[in-house]
Amino acid sequence: MAVVVSLDEERGKTPRPSLAVLSALVGDDLRLVNELIVRRMHSPVALIPQLASHIVAAGGKRLRPMLTLASARMCGYGGQRHIALAACVEFIHTATLLHDDVVDESNLRRGLATANALWGNKASVLVGDFLFSRAFQVMVEDGSLAVLSILANASAVIAEGEVLQLMTANDAETSEAAYLEVIKAKTATLFAAACRIGAVVAERPKAEEDALECYGLNLGIAFQVIDDVLDYTAQQSTLGKTVGDDFRDGKVTLPVVLAYLRGDDEERRFWRRTLEDLDQRKDDLPHAIMLMERQGSLRDSIERARHYGAIARDALGLFPDGAEKRALVELIDFTIARTY
Amino acid sequence: MAVVVSLDEERGKTPRPSLAVLSALVGDDLRLVNELIVRRMHSPVALIPQLASHIVAAGGKRLRPMLTLASARMCGYGGQRHIALAACVEFIHTATLLHDDVVDESNLRRGLATANALWGNKASVLVGDFLFSRAFQVMVEDGSLAVLSILANASAVIAEGEVLQLMTANDAETSEAAYLEVIKAKTATLFAAACRIGAVVAERPKAEEDALECYGLNLGIAFQVIDDVLDYTAQQSTLGKTVGDDFRDGKVTLPVVLAYLRGDDEERRFWRRTLEDLDQRKDDLPHAIMLMERQGSLRDSIERARHYGAIARDALGLFPDGAEKRALVELIDFTIARTY
Repeated sequence: MAVVVSLDEERGKTPRPSLAVLSALVGDDLRLVNELIVRRMHSPVALIPQLASHIVAAGGKRLRPMLTLASARMCGYGGQRHIALAACVEFIHTATLLHDDVVDESNLRRGLATANALWGNKASVLVGDFLFSRAFQVMVEDGSLAVLSILANASAVIAEGEVLQLMTANDAETSEAAYLEVIKAKTATLFAAACRIGAVVAERPKAEEDALECYGLNLGIAFQVIDDVLDYTAQQSTLGKTVGDDFRDGKVTLPVVLAYLRGDDEERRFWRRTLEDLDQRKDDLPHAIMLMERQGSLRDSIERARHYGAIARDALGLFPDGAEKRALVELIDFTIARTY
Repeated sequence: MAVVVSLDEERGKTPRPSLAVLSALVGDDLRLVNELIVRRMHSPVALIPQLASHIVAAGGKRLRPMLTLASARMCGYGGQRHIALAACVEFIHTATLLHDDVVDESNLRRGLATANALWGNKASVLVGDFLFSRAFQVMVEDGSLAVLSILANASAVIAEGEVLQLMTANDAETSEAAYLEVIKAKTATLFAAACRIGAVVAERPKAEEDALECYGLNLGIAFQVIDDVLDYTAQQSTLGKTVGDDFRDGKVTLPVVLAYLRGDDEERRFWRRTLEDLDQRKDDLPHAIMLMERQGSLRDSIERARHYGAIARDALGLFPDGAEKRALVELIDFTIARTY
């Protein structure tokens, strides 16, 4: 993958940014979050913990709960409320994944069969509803209307974003602004909420809440842009999902938006045939990647991600230097340089 | 329909119970609820109000929000909070209907094409999520953790009930207890929550909250039992849904549970073939109804509903006589005697 190699060169001798520092910093808290998740997924209806633990245990990177944990600690919070609230964030994320996989008709997530592939769409819809309700139950137990407001608003925006994506799917002429609106809603809003909650539990001033929300929102945008790039450039074994999924689904992500805008008539016909008509042939995916490289759309998508990463970095300017802040800065670098 | 006629005879000369008294009593409040529903369904994503208004406007009986309105008034509440909270109850109900229709693969509800039939399963899942989130947003604006707790708990129980139903579907040996557990969770819990909220906004003692919850729970059980009877006995034009839907889906409802338990080996083979194997032939539905009449399972299902109705009636004993209480009592009679 030409793009990845050139990034490595650019970075020169600096060590590859990783999640290690952040993971070590919030490791103890995250273990408590994981325990609470397992405990609160329980239901006398056996299929619920079975199905939920499949997706929770499949273990994504737990980025969103880690954001709540690190934000709270960076804000000087010394209590334990952030544990349960980080679990709520993960429950909401998991519920949206379950519904997403139904909507996208996905069969593979993080290298494992999706819940809908194993247990069917019906169970995925209903267990998603359960986890969503459970998140609100746990928030009510915590008792903060401010937190409830943040996550109720985030959930509504996420659902709006998903519907918007459904309506604008398979349109090769999607503008960069429309793309941005969708990923803000469906991905970045929950990152932003996860961070903001950290300042809320620490009872920090509104300016710091806003700063953390700004960090999370822009980190989330960068994260999704890179996700969309990785769908074309990653190694299948590293990514843990099928490379080219977005292409096969006709999803118009940023690398496509830019390649289409920069392409000539013939290239645009290719994008419309493959992504709008979903008329795809054997060598179309490699051809799509070749066109993206020709137009520099993968490289420039990464450049766009760097821009949002820079905004996220500056948003942390309000906070004093310290281990948590350094970990949140490295998280931006990881988000952009990651290969999975 | 033999069953309905005999009930009419039983009632003799008393006027047929209706929703008219309750509707007149809470009519002004209900108009405000409907306005608020339309206002809060709004989203810049056009498909959301389109799809949501299809199902909201299809206008069921609005029983659940009416329960909140009448309960609050019976408790002497003089404010306006019950309007928004009644809307939340209806939003949650609508969200579950949208997801139900996806899970049940239904094409017709209240005589109209379902949202999933018109816009597809994906949109129904996501708009359901949106309405659910919107309900929590409106509750947060109201600001009562007690109400949030009631509806978050109810939502989790509803989802559990739906999963339980999914797991126990197509089992002709379902016990009456297992049937009851499912309908309590998926139907009666929201009736109970809707009523309890009325006492909460009126700041009445816990005993009155509990009494209203008991009324709602038992009314809800009676309501669902009668719904399941109507699926075999109603006139299609009156019911507004397809008679025999449950049979065709292989749903094991109370009339089936009783007919199976009382049936001989041949009858049980019939139920297993039609409901477990879903091997159904032309005259199987009329034959099923004939077996139910032979075993008295439709009539006795109505008797069971009367039992829950009687508990609901007694639960209102704590409250002083008045127009609201009389309307809530008549609602029990309507629930049992209704033909739609």
